[in-house]
Amino acid sequence: MTLTATAVVDRYPTRIDGDPELIDRTDPSVWDFTGAGPIDRATMAGHHTKGFSVHHDLLSPAEVAACRDELARLATDPGLAEDERAVLTDDGEVRMIYEVHAVSELVAELVRDPRVLDRARQILGSDVYIHQSRIDYLPGFRGKGTYWHSPFETWHAEDGMPAPRAVSVSIPLSGQQELTGELMAMPGSHRTFVPTTLGSGGVPDKEHLRSLGAAYGIERFTDAAGSVLVFDANTMQGSADNITPFPQTNIHVVFSSVENLLFAPFAGGQPRPPYLANRDCEALRR
Amino acid sequence: MTLTATAVVDRYPTRIDGDPELIDRTDPSVWDFTGAGPIDRATMAGHHTKGFSVHHDLLSPAEVAACRDELARLATDPGLAEDERAVLTDDGEVRMIYEVHAVSELVAELVRDPRVLDRARQILGSDVYIHQSRIDYLPGFRGKGTYWHSPFETWHAEDGMPAPRAVSVSIPLSGQQELTGELMAMPGSHRTFVPTTLGSGGVPDKEHLRSLGAAYGIERFTDAAGSVLVFDANTMQGSADNITPFPQTNIHVVFSSVENLLFAPFAGGQPRPPYLANRDCEALRR
Repeated sequence: MTLTATAVVDRYPTRIDGDPELIDRTDPSVWDFTGAGPIDRATMAGHHTKGFSVHHDLLSPAEVAACRDELARLATDPGLAEDERAVLTDDGEVRMIYEVHAVSELVAELVRDPRVLDRARQILGSDVYIHQSRIDYLPGFRGKGTYWHSPFETWHAEDGMPAPRAVSVSIPLSGQQELTGELMAMPGSHRTFVPTTLGSGGVPDKEHLRSLGAAYGIERFTDAAGSVLVFDANTMQGSADNITPFPQTNIHVVFSSVENLLFAPFAGGQPRPPYLANRDCEALRR
Repeated sequence: MTLTATAVVDRYPTRIDGDPELIDRTDPSVWDFTGAGPIDRATMAGHHTKGFSVHHDLLSPAEVAACRDELARLATDPGLAEDERAVLTDDGEVRMIYEVHAVSELVAELVRDPRVLDRARQILGSDVYIHQSRIDYLPGFRGKGTYWHSPFETWHAEDGMPAPRAVSVSIPLSGQQELTGELMAMPGSHRTFVPTTLGSGGVPDKEHLRSLGAAYGIERFTDAAGSVLVFDANTMQGSADNITPFPQTNIHVVFSSVENLLFAPFAGGQPRPPYLANRDCEALRR
């Protein structure tokens, strides 16, 4: 099913020509508190309050090792390096691979694993489709972090996602020695939509970040491999550069509700390619 | 007392023309385990093993607030901004002030406070002098971190400090909201001297950093203001950029043993100015 017409009211206007004002989110972050699933009530309440939740030891050490092997294999696949879905560094190293659930059998299974899929379904209160999937290979020493942003702001503006009824599932694969402390988020920030200015590329205003930071504070994630982070789409997040000597790898999957289909980009322009914003919104099944 | 002749054997040759090899440190890190002082035996043993120690809640909230006020005052002192001891950003903001114990009464008292001074004396097993003091004002959003380095490597090469018989005392003044998690160190790395190559400016080789990182791992400091970090001079350390919306301020004092006077720079060249490397090595007294 492909929809590109703008058929909904824009409740989160962004890329504004002028001074954008913060918008209180009207959508819930947990869509069905009564829904059955693997997440217990306390974890769900925490997710509702903070906009993210850590699911400890979801993968076994053997599964983490298998993922790491698969990522190492993909990074050195000569065919993939020439694929448009691969992002290379200036040195020709693979930095990211998009649509990885279509590229790797292992990842295709992982995104359908009930431990992962049912968590996304439970939070979003519906069937889900994959909006985007990718592998991040963050090099050591000078691995570039990502500045503060709300992923939903980009998906709304550039992909036409109407509501933040989506979650990012981040599966860090760094081992014990590798410090996974680069990722930061502002707990509670998902309740506020931060519109950006026209031409900003989705980078929030400093005053808005100061005000959100003062209101919500910042949490840093330091969990070992095997734990899985689930973020609300509108959580304000960023990551520092990775100056550790260790590369960090990560599988990243965005699940969106099947009741949250993509329309035309709300900020205008052409939609991004399907490997960045999947428009095949069929419900993901085991 | 001023000494500029090289009168000692160089046990830590660095800035090498060729491939430098790691050197096992021959000096202790705790010079007198029997010495009386405020540090308890367990903390001292930890300092010996890791090369650093955290001294919790050393300053009261009122003292932290007084320090913060003083730093804010110094940052806007128009006379200081023109002083050679002040380092400014491209925007003309004060980024660092060196020799701050000579500039600020409050800092002059702080470095003589028995809670601080007696800890340095206890670890170094002797009277101490101030090798360097400074304030760091790390801006928010895009505050530049510091790459991996051993401070002693620089002090040895450029200041003629013969041995790592010195400690850095770091007094973070960030409040509860401000995440003080940028500073990282490799626990145990102080036992290995990492010589650098000629022209490197003291930046260690990546292979050496990988090998130290694999051997020792990395710790990140996340203590709230009021706690004080004491580092051995040769601890391998670095900090990520500060992308949080919050500026971070820090008082940094290097105490060196009076039995560890400065000679001519071991890597040759002119000594750095006295506000970077104090050659007035008189014992600091209360």
